[in-house]
Amino acid sequence: MPKKEEKLGISVKKEDDFSEWYNEVVIKSELAEHSVIKGFMVIRPRGYAIWECIQDYFDEKIKNLGVKNAYFPLLVPEAFFKKEAEHAQGFEPELAWISEKEEGVRYAIRPTSETIMYDSYGKWVRSWRDLPLRINQWCNILRWEVKQTKLFLRTREFLWQEGHCVYETEEECNKEALLYLNEYKKLSEDLLAIPVLAGKKTEKEKFAGAKTTYSLEALMPDGKALQMGTSHNLGQNFAKAFNIRYLGKDEKEYVPWQNSWGFSTRLIGALVMTHSDDKGLILPPNIASTQIVIVPIYKSENKDKVIKKANEIKNKLKNYDAILDDRDSYTPGWKFNEWELKGIPLRIEIGPKDIAKNQVVLVSRDNNNKEFIKIAQLDKKVKDTLENIQANLFQKAKKFLDSNITEAKDWNDFIKKIKNRKLVKAFFCGDVGCEDLIKDKTQGATSRLIPLEQPKKIGKCVHCRKQGKFLVYFAKAY
Amino acid sequence: MPKKEEKLGISVKKEDDFSEWYNEVVIKSELAEHSVIKGFMVIRPRGYAIWECIQDYFDEKIKNLGVKNAYFPLLVPEAFFKKEAEHAQGFEPELAWISEKEEGVRYAIRPTSETIMYDSYGKWVRSWRDLPLRINQWCNILRWEVKQTKLFLRTREFLWQEGHCVYETEEECNKEALLYLNEYKKLSEDLLAIPVLAGKKTEKEKFAGAKTTYSLEALMPDGKALQMGTSHNLGQNFAKAFNIRYLGKDEKEYVPWQNSWGFSTRLIGALVMTHSDDKGLILPPNIASTQIVIVPIYKSENKDKVIKKANEIKNKLKNYDAILDDRDSYTPGWKFNEWELKGIPLRIEIGPKDIAKNQVVLVSRDNNNKEFIKIAQLDKKVKDTLENIQANLFQKAKKFLDSNITEAKDWNDFIKKIKNRKLVKAFFCGDVGCEDLIKDKTQGATSRLIPLEQPKKIGKCVHCRKQGKFLVYFAKAY
Repeated sequence: MPKKEEKLGISVKKEDDFSEWYNEVVIKSELAEHSVIKGFMVIRPRGYAIWECIQDYFDEKIKNLGVKNAYFPLLVPEAFFKKEAEHAQGFEPELAWISEKEEGVRYAIRPTSETIMYDSYGKWVRSWRDLPLRINQWCNILRWEVKQTKLFLRTREFLWQEGHCVYETEEECNKEALLYLNEYKKLSEDLLAIPVLAGKKTEKEKFAGAKTTYSLEALMPDGKALQMGTSHNLGQNFAKAFNIRYLGKDEKEYVPWQNSWGFSTRLIGALVMTHSDDKGLILPPNIASTQIVIVPIYKSENKDKVIKKANEIKNKLKNYDAILDDRDSYTPGWKFNEWELKGIPLRIEIGPKDIAKNQVVLVSRDNNNKEFIKIAQLDKKVKDTLENIQANLFQKAKKFLDSNITEAKDWNDFIKKIKNRKLVKAFFCGDVGCEDLIKDKTQGATSRLIPLEQPKKIGKCVHCRKQGKFLVYFAKAY
Repeated sequence: MPKKEEKLGISVKKEDDFSEWYNEVVIKSELAEHSVIKGFMVIRPRGYAIWECIQDYFDEKIKNLGVKNAYFPLLVPEAFFKKEAEHAQGFEPELAWISEKEEGVRYAIRPTSETIMYDSYGKWVRSWRDLPLRINQWCNILRWEVKQTKLFLRTREFLWQEGHCVYETEEECNKEALLYLNEYKKLSEDLLAIPVLAGKKTEKEKFAGAKTTYSLEALMPDGKALQMGTSHNLGQNFAKAFNIRYLGKDEKEYVPWQNSWGFSTRLIGALVMTHSDDKGLILPPNIASTQIVIVPIYKSENKDKVIKKANEIKNKLKNYDAILDDRDSYTPGWKFNEWELKGIPLRIEIGPKDIAKNQVVLVSRDNNNKEFIKIAQLDKKVKDTLENIQANLFQKAKKFLDSNITEAKDWNDFIKKIKNRKLVKAFFCGDVGCEDLIKDKTQGATSRLIPLEQPKKIGKCVHCRKQGKFLVYFAKAY
């Protein structure tokens, strides 16, 4: 038996040290690892396969909505950042510059691509016929100012998609900003089995340069909120700064409206945190590139027979791209542990006794449920079980989210509930200064979002007691 | 009618000024454009769609061969380049450094990822059970030392795939290096309709750090060769430098063998050069995301009837994702020009006379062939015509390649034939110094490749008249 075995499992419990548990799950299930370069990660094949699955799902959705992919330069000239003042200020601390210059111009590696893309848009958009212009880019992004690295969640480089659209009217622009947000919601909930809340960002939390930022937030098991995707109504700020103009049907010149929207590989971090357990990774079947592992249980005298049957089972399940783990040098128990660690949703065990009874054993990764299944029923039972795992994982996460949303009666109540790691609903005045104070006094709670549906009567701000503007969700956040 | 019309077409003939013609085709068919950042390009949606088609095709092929995708950091620490001496020397002039440092370490943006990947491989590979390790990465690459920008062919940043595999034996390593080369050949010929020659690189032209470099070369219409993809047997050089070791079945430690292989967005440049003409882009049907455009021909009195029929035709062809160009503000002639410029392989025209005869007109983009087709036969005829276009484009390019390969009798003959922009076969001694002289004396001809099948008897070197080592193809190259 290889020595590896001793080091295979997760050495910390999710309840005891969430942060260390997370790190171990990501590394030991071989999703990613820390690079030798500080703040950077290597996304290993098992982690990248999740990203590919997210890409395939989302790419099809946006293409059906008329979005086309393109690719813009990695570098952004210094002057571009200065064209939109808020944007420049927001990203300044995050930029990494390259030493090479061309005619004295400094270049930063893109922290986001608004400016470099809109310089081209200024040339491409001429008339109403060119609108709406809907372009998306899948690429790598660099943001240097990372304090403490956390795989998938806080790294200097990450992968993402950024959609950038141009419209004739604000109405259309805002409507589609919400449409893409809704696609993110479907991706989170249907594919990743992570329930999310949707809403607007406050003035303090919105994207640098945007008019309105819409966001999706999920609640992690440690009570911290995690932003799953954002969609910005950029208004006309960038269009003005980058001289994007179009001739309307009336032959007059207009400034168009823009939105941009993105999600990143941090989704993989949310996926790990939400579902996994002390045995390792749990992947919802819809995002698992391998959904099933077949583990044959045999001794040398019946090996051939069992392996033959296991192969038959595999062939019956060829729609699922199942793995048959017939490695001789590992025990069944070792294999169970390995595939549990790596998050395969469904295990099928088959041994001589099962063959005699024309059955197999199905074991669900999420709750360890064991079921004896007649081979004749295999197809249907596998399908049902995978659907159940997907649904159960979502329901479990939904229950957690719902049970952790609470309302603050007053400021003391607010502080107490934030301390208890709740997602706290409270009335808020909307003032940036007031929000800064809330963050300071709670050691880090920030407004996560303003729900789109607001109560009719808004009470006083939970902190400053001035008249509130809206009901807001507050929490500590990743 | 919009003013655009005047500027629509290509203003230079392919025969008159190949370089300017190429630039215009790329820009006016909206594949790509020059960025404001010197040496960089913007890949527009029409160009990126070609890249996506290449990715889809190739990604499936390599996954079937057991390759998995992953993602490694954009930055490479300076010390990594120095671990493999030849590699460091080869890439040194091309590096762009970032200003930010961590504990005094300088980082370059990756010009290729051997070193950053193999640092991880050193940790991942432990025993024979971990081999072969086959990993691929789709990413952006930066090489600063570009003199004159040429869209897709010479830009500081480009997109590519780089495969990096590790094996127990050299035999397996070399065999698979050739396997990936063969996949490139199929991609070039079956998808892009570009015939290629396969072979090895000479000592002078091989990849910095490789033991053997295999390459595919295509011949462009201006008589310059273009490298379509390379595959390197890296030997054990990098494994030694990055301390990659494995325990064999005999429990002894061994140094493994590695290969790496890549192609880039320059394939799109080769595609444009090979097939396109004075009217603009020509895309082989297999690589065209839109294969068919339907142009209805009508006057106001019969518009409804014609549009209705055109929609019927479109529905009949829904497997092809055909465009119906029913824009009122453009004449049919203008539409013909636009879609010819943009390279749609097949045009279907339908007017009132055609409707009366239950027919449509098919026009092939490659040779402008017109055919009247009964609507009942549409499906089959469209399928056949698209297949014919694909085959014709390949055959035409093949004929060009074959007719431009020639043998040099002696040095004067060699110079004359290089001047005449031929791909010249000649015996060569293999000496780097001799090859440098050949390049100088011919204003740029280099060895393109050593065919894998060599004649039994090798004559004297075409240049130095010493005993030759092999038969080599020489040409000027992109």
